[in-house]
Amino acid sequence: MADVRTALIISAHAADFVWRCGGAIALHAEMGCEVTVACLSFGERGESARLWKDGKSLQEVKDIRRGEAEAAATVLGAHRLECFDLGDYPLHLEKEDKFRLVDLIRAVQPSFMMSHSQYDPYNTDHMYMTQIALEARMIAQAWGHNPGENVLGAPQLYLFEPHQTEQMGWKPDVFLDITPVWDKKRKAMECMNGQVHLWEYYTRVAQQRANHFKRNSGGMSGGRDCKFAEGFQSVFPRTVDML
Amino acid sequence: MADVRTALIISAHAADFVWRCGGAIALHAEMGCEVTVACLSFGERGESARLWKDGKSLQEVKDIRRGEAEAAATVLGAHRLECFDLGDYPLHLEKEDKFRLVDLIRAVQPSFMMSHSQYDPYNTDHMYMTQIALEARMIAQAWGHNPGENVLGAPQLYLFEPHQTEQMGWKPDVFLDITPVWDKKRKAMECMNGQVHLWEYYTRVAQQRANHFKRNSGGMSGGRDCKFAEGFQSVFPRTVDML
Amino acid sequence: MADVRTALIISAHAADFVWRCGGAIALHAEMGCEVTVACLSFGERGESARLWKDGKSLQEVKDIRRGEAEAAATVLGAHRLECFDLGDYPLHLEKEDKFRLVDLIRAVQPSFMMSHSQYDPYNTDHMYMTQIALEARMIAQAWGHNPGENVLGAPQLYLFEPHQTEQMGWKPDVFLDITPVWDKKRKAMECMNGQVHLWEYYTRVAQQRANHFKRNSGGMSGGRDCKFAEGFQSVFPRTVDML
Amino acid sequence: MADVRTALIISAHAADFVWRCGGAIALHAEMGCEVTVACLSFGERGESARLWKDGKSLQEVKDIRRGEAEAAATVLGAHRLECFDLGDYPLHLEKEDKFRLVDLIRAVQPSFMMSHSQYDPYNTDHMYMTQIALEARMIAQAWGHNPGENVLGAPQLYLFEPHQTEQMGWKPDVFLDITPVWDKKRKAMECMNGQVHLWEYYTRVAQQRANHFKRNSGGMSGGRDCKFAEGFQSVFPRTVDML
Amino acid sequence: MADVRTALIISAHAADFVWRCGGAIALHAEMGCEVTVACLSFGERGESARLWKDGKSLQEVKDIRRGEAEAAATVLGAHRLECFDLGDYPLHLEKEDKFRLVDLIRAVQPSFMMSHSQYDPYNTDHMYMTQIALEARMIAQAWGHNPGENVLGAPQLYLFEPHQTEQMGWKPDVFLDITPVWDKKRKAMECMNGQVHLWEYYTRVAQQRANHFKRNSGGMSGGRDCKFAEGFQSVFPRTVDML
Amino acid sequence: MADVRTALIISAHAADFVWRCGGAIALHAEMGCEVTVACLSFGERGESARLWKDGKSLQEVKDIRRGEAEAAATVLGAHRLECFDLGDYPLHLEKEDKFRLVDLIRAVQPSFMMSHSQYDPYNTDHMYMTQIALEARMIAQAWGHNPGENVLGAPQLYLFEPHQTEQMGWKPDVFLDITPVWDKKRKAMECMNGQVHLWEYYTRVAQQRANHFKRNSGGMSGGRDCKFAEGFQSVFPRTVDML
Repeated sequence: MADVRTALIISAHAADFVWRCGGAIALHAEMGCEVTVACLSFGERGESARLWKDGKSLQEVKDIRRGEAEAAATVLGAHRLECFDLGDYPLHLEKEDKFRLVDLIRAVQPSFMMSHSQYDPYNTDHMYMTQIALEARMIAQAWGHNPGENVLGAPQLYLFEPHQTEQMGWKPDVFLDITPVWDKKRKAMECMNGQVHLWEYYTRVAQQRANHFKRNSGGMSGGRDCKFAEGFQSVFPRTVDML
Repeated sequence: MADVRTALIISAHAADFVWRCGGAIALHAEMGCEVTVACLSFGERGESARLWKDGKSLQEVKDIRRGEAEAAATVLGAHRLECFDLGDYPLHLEKEDKFRLVDLIRAVQPSFMMSHSQYDPYNTDHMYMTQIALEARMIAQAWGHNPGENVLGAPQLYLFEPHQTEQMGWKPDVFLDITPVWDKKRKAMECMNGQVHLWEYYTRVAQQRANHFKRNSGGMSGGRDCKFAEGFQSVFPRTVDML
Repeated sequence: MADVRTALIISAHAADFVWRCGGAIALHAEMGCEVTVACLSFGERGESARLWKDGKSLQEVKDIRRGEAEAAATVLGAHRLECFDLGDYPLHLEKEDKFRLVDLIRAVQPSFMMSHSQYDPYNTDHMYMTQIALEARMIAQAWGHNPGENVLGAPQLYLFEPHQTEQMGWKPDVFLDITPVWDKKRKAMECMNGQVHLWEYYTRVAQQRANHFKRNSGGMSGGRDCKFAEGFQSVFPRTVDML
Repeated sequence: MADVRTALIISAHAADFVWRCGGAIALHAEMGCEVTVACLSFGERGESARLWKDGKSLQEVKDIRRGEAEAAATVLGAHRLECFDLGDYPLHLEKEDKFRLVDLIRAVQPSFMMSHSQYDPYNTDHMYMTQIALEARMIAQAWGHNPGENVLGAPQLYLFEPHQTEQMGWKPDVFLDITPVWDKKRKAMECMNGQVHLWEYYTRVAQQRANHFKRNSGGMSGGRDCKFAEGFQSVFPRTVDML
Repeated sequence: MADVRTALIISAHAADFVWRCGGAIALHAEMGCEVTVACLSFGERGESARLWKDGKSLQEVKDIRRGEAEAAATVLGAHRLECFDLGDYPLHLEKEDKFRLVDLIRAVQPSFMMSHSQYDPYNTDHMYMTQIALEARMIAQAWGHNPGENVLGAPQLYLFEPHQTEQMGWKPDVFLDITPVWDKKRKAMECMNGQVHLWEYYTRVAQQRANHFKRNSGGMSGGRDCKFAEGFQSVFPRTVDML
Repeated sequence: MADVRTALIISAHAADFVWRCGGAIALHAEMGCEVTVACLSFGERGESARLWKDGKSLQEVKDIRRGEAEAAATVLGAHRLECFDLGDYPLHLEKEDKFRLVDLIRAVQPSFMMSHSQYDPYNTDHMYMTQIALEARMIAQAWGHNPGENVLGAPQLYLFEPHQTEQMGWKPDVFLDITPVWDKKRKAMECMNGQVHLWEYYTRVAQQRANHFKRNSGGMSGGRDCKFAEGFQSVFPRTVDML
């Protein structure tokens, strides 16, 4: 592992990384971690209703969405934003697209990765994205894939919060205190002009997760205060020297 | 929380704490953590077949099992061994027994707790024990239970490894490297004279878990070496400042 | 939503809509609901054993199956039968096939949709069909897919009854009384000449579901009588003004 | 079933019915439904931390909690509040306590019942309560239990929202629009002076559920507006004449 | 294990063994297996609605139910019917009742055991019964329980078919052809005069299971014919010398 | 079914069949069963780290892996080894590849089939393989696929043991005693020179499974001794004439 910690966020659509793990990005960036965000599509067809209602063309929608994503990534302090521009609804990756993602994973050598929940009947792009994230992680670990390159270790894959958690069977096992970087997350959300209705929604999500943080860190007796938090579900077990 | 870290192991039968988390006990003891072991029964009826075949009386069986448990606890460096002597097969707690366990939890103020898997069709004492551990944890948190006492915070409850993991739906989410204290665990296991056939079995378990530790800490590329490990399943989510 | 209620049944093979939701089709048709049935294949390879034993050619098998499906759809009062003729065992949809299904969904603007169970190790066409139904539903909701068209709202997706329910993890959460239209369902089943052995089987299914209807509507105390019923599993939550 | 619809809420602790289904109570009361609330305990030991910190005695805590529950029930328009006063942390019912609950169920003859989630590792009283609710429902249906009394039909048992939904495996399958009665729910919550920190928390829950209501009733295309909602999970299947 | 194969059916209410495994009893009896049936209650309160409607007293109901159970057991060729008469709705076992069941298990030394599904929200007696069956099985295996007695080996516990299988999460993994003894099962069912409506219901169940037997034994290509079958779910893994 | 029993192992990578079911192959071969092993890839990219570190070319790696697989198959007494050479990491089958697998299934007419666990986040090739195995099994059963050929019956699909069982949700329901052929399995494992670290690992797996065999065949009271065993999970229910 490199001296600098790194992370890789794999987001099906342009805005997912903001709502679902913007706090984690900003927090780790502040700690010197280089966070790369991969947007496989701009969410141009499926998550840009307002722009289409306004009569924008496909190219305009994509440009605007790209601009918003870049602005948000900058606010969050992301090290790099990589837009794959593969189209959405449905998102689909051919073999070479998968290999491009593998290349990115190997280039980043992430300490941890993030993607969507494993089930999402509302949005099949989301669950497809996670399936691909696992496949690409596996290929990146293969000594025989582009032999000579640095193979990947075994980074955790965190699943960030989907929109209706209970319908997705998503169960967070770690809560991250993002209070110190809340302003950045809020500012990043406000870059997403096409989804204004979600600003308050995900502010409330962060407040509810803060309540859960407090409860699980000690509750009424010594629970640490926390104003804003994010939750994540781990796919793989951790390895530790102390419980 | 006190300056000294503390832990509480809640074991249905006398030997469970040795096979299932002896390494965790020894490791944390070496780090200065005060580990208390609660044995709710001696496993005298159900887990002492050899002694019964030898014609021992109930009192003799219990005495021998207590002696073995004490010896093992000493080897592991446990801070305290508390034998509730409530009987096994079936284990049953009346309200006052539960309150005695609550008292112990409050006295220990554990940084983390441990008990059995939540399902075990082979051994209903085990799943009953975990149910009680959750109930006692809840009572210990209640400000109105023996008002004035120090209430409990929100310690993790780790579920240690059952005998046939797959039949119990037990899924470890954390592997602990116990290589530095392996000799102690082996010695503690060898205190259990009535279950000699399990010494090799749980030595192999520790070796297999070490393989899993290595895989999940980096695998073929940077996975940390590990000779012996133990696995645990967390009931509650963690709260962290960094992923 | 249009003034007339509409429904869309998405059936992997030609006969599925008869056995699994023929009653729902007939009942809703009688209530003035326009029910469209989409058969993605004729089940020509995998569900026409008798015809192949009789030495029919592929085209003959397909023609016969189409004829049976049309006859059944007519008996049930279906508004429209759309045969995609994509082949079966395995059923596979290319992007343009999916878009054809999306077009149909948008044309119908269904109040509710129906498809297969989400798991079926006996018949992978079935679970694939439901996966595609979810994907097509998502695309149909996208404002940027064929901008200007009427986008889809959020219709329920009901999963109709598979053959061996317990093996599929299928759990019905709604039972529909089809007694008033039973004769039509029976007649429609009798259109399926290649699967005579299923006529009695699915008659018994309807009788058993009627027993479940009665039990869940009040049981021994006020349960409404019911002779024939069908069961369905909902994918999405309902939204109501009264419980 | 009587001419007047009735409902029965079975709440482990005094305040649960307010946070978790106060909207449903007020809404149905306004529609003429007689809603009975059963509080099996006052939550005096486990959910009254502030009062204990203030040095109140057990009797004082119970009196205050009863007063709050009565005030909330009145605000919500509940038909009847029945306090069983059985103690909490742990809640436990002897046979005669169960029969008292059965008597209440039979007296109410509820069109639907409500209780807690089926799993709650944080609060074993909650899952115990639901287990008892199912047992009491079964006994109330028995013709041989107090023969001659009116036996119970087969009312739905809705599971209302627990505190950390994802940790409980709770999955709502119905969302109820409580916008028309929101002021009453908020006022009822404000009766709970010992849990001020939850007022905002459950206001945000209602806002999030309203977002889910809107999405599931049509989303971006025709989804009905909704400001506040509550979610519920059904234990039993529904029986209907139309989908 | 004795020379003669033996089996033990643990039935919460008097009639359960008839509907759910009457075929298995008759078939094994014909093969020389000694099948003992334990009825923990007569189902007198909860499953005898017709008798209560007819104005029978509790003692009359129990007598009639016992008579029916005895008649059915005789028809099926059961070796022994043991009525515990512990009461139903709810069924409850004190420690001594459990030990009585343990005594029976040890006396029978069953090659296999049978009981109810592990989940049943309609009938908590059923799931309680299975929980007790597992507990009693465990105690019967304990060398220290009544030392000197023959301890139990590790017989399979089969879960027989509940009434609404899908609501119980019951998944059969073995189908037994009961065609040769169908007449006996039908005759045994007809001994249950208070539940006439179930005769046809469980006849249809047997026919549907026969269809599943045929499908899983080879289907359209070599599936063995079968007219009546029963399904069972195994709790424990099998041990074999050949797959 | 033919006079000679046959079996078909479907292995994603060249060595899987050795670690996961080498004992089953050898045991059945000794009993006269013709066991065919299909290796869909050589595991050349993803499971040959040592060879790549040694600087081998792709063709060399494949040749070496093929050689090892052939040697192992010979040691185990496999009837036939069919290498599909489709590539790994990721493994992918086009329609014609699937049909080639279908052809093999029909040629073998297996009494039982084997493949990987249904979930494996570490290795998506594994779960993909099982998905394909189910699809190919279905196609092989279709009378209209290559009409005139012998269609497949309904052979069991056993899922053999994955590497970290608990992470895969794999639950064995049958243990096979492989003690009589252990030497062959060990010798076959030793053919896999690139994965020396797994020899001891899978020896310990076999020893642990033997312990489980003993426990489930009677435990402390009559459990049959067993030195080495393998575990399998069944996808489909069994059909029997005796329990």
